[in-house]
Amino acid sequence: MQPVLTTFRQVPTLAQGLVRDLRVRWALEEIGQPYRTRLIDWEESQSAGYLRQQPFAQVPVLEIDGLTLFESGAIALHLAERHAALMPSDPAGRQRARVWVLAALNSVEPTIQPLGTIDLFHPGAAWAIERRPAVEADLRRRLGRLAAWLGDHPYLEDRFTVGDLMMATVLRMLRHTDLVTGDPVLGPYLARCEARPAFGKALADHMAVYAAAA
Amino acid sequence: MQPVLTTFRQVPTLAQGLVRDLRVRWALEEIGQPYRTRLIDWEESQSAGYLRQQPFAQVPVLEIDGLTLFESGAIALHLAERHAALMPSDPAGRQRARVWVLAALNSVEPTIQPLGTIDLFHPGAAWAIERRPAVEADLRRRLGRLAAWLGDHPYLEDRFTVGDLMMATVLRMLRHTDLVTGDPVLGPYLARCEARPAFGKALADHMAVYAAAA
Repeated sequence: MQPVLTTFRQVPTLAQGLVRDLRVRWALEEIGQPYRTRLIDWEESQSAGYLRQQPFAQVPVLEIDGLTLFESGAIALHLAERHAALMPSDPAGRQRARVWVLAALNSVEPTIQPLGTIDLFHPGAAWAIERRPAVEADLRRRLGRLAAWLGDHPYLEDRFTVGDLMMATVLRMLRHTDLVTGDPVLGPYLARCEARPAFGKALADHMAVYAAAA
Repeated sequence: MQPVLTTFRQVPTLAQGLVRDLRVRWALEEIGQPYRTRLIDWEESQSAGYLRQQPFAQVPVLEIDGLTLFESGAIALHLAERHAALMPSDPAGRQRARVWVLAALNSVEPTIQPLGTIDLFHPGAAWAIERRPAVEADLRRRLGRLAAWLGDHPYLEDRFTVGDLMMATVLRMLRHTDLVTGDPVLGPYLARCEARPAFGKALADHMAVYAAAA
């Protein structure tokens, strides 16, 4: 039976291309795993039945192998561990790939989110104008660390892994700025990840849902 | 050879008891794994040598089994997967424990951090006063979802796992408020996790470092 990916039928334009089902779609494409989608609306996300699948009323959920999994990071790790496309076979390489998934989600994304909150949801608010410079400065420091690590390497470790997949989806959250695209290391890194055919297919399928619902 | 845990020799008082080496210490105590510590100061955390171990100049780092791992979440998963104390043996139970580690780090902690930034680092700033009510409201909604999931269950799944360990260390970040301690579900949940002897030992060892450096 094909895995079933649950995600939202429609989201605001500013979220299209960033909703976290994209991570799971990308991972499924990289490993060549066909899947079905189950589209829900906001009301259903608040239902008792859905909250038993996803306690925070978020997406995505993936039903696979008799399991119901949430958290895009946990789902991506589950998929990666079963297929060489997203993770090397040696124990050290597997651990390093996982370290980067956690780094993307707990060291980079939380530094990006405050800027997104200001720029996308509260532009022009007095508090946002006062706070923004410090938020951007913190973020520039964190991105600088990431760029220094990458240097002239194409990926975070010696090959593309689920860690790069996750980091790329996190860096995409800055698409409304030039903080990544204008960086001589991070810009090409993100472009390299996004040039993968599996990403292109995943993004097209992700966007097609919103076009169909419009 | 014993694993080596790298962490800071000293941190500001408001961070003591929250630095992420506590997560790794707790996990090591739960599985009964002795370890050594390597204490660094801020200057060393900025060195080229350390940045090769921890690209973001953070702590902790754990050297174990010939691997150098960073990200407390990745380290805790590595330890949990090798010992039944932190993760059940059945595949579904293992996946669920991991889901909760990711939920703690990517769905709960990022909702808590903005309140900590306001209350601990910018109390009284105009932007912080204007922004705080919305941040607290967002956080209350997220914590309400977590409490609803827990209900009258003692743990997130049917036994204590690394997911509870991680969630408890995240909830501790609200110790300067009554948002967790005053909640009829989350307060007892956190107390239950913190009552574990392994947590007590880990916290004592964590605090002893700062006392010795003072």
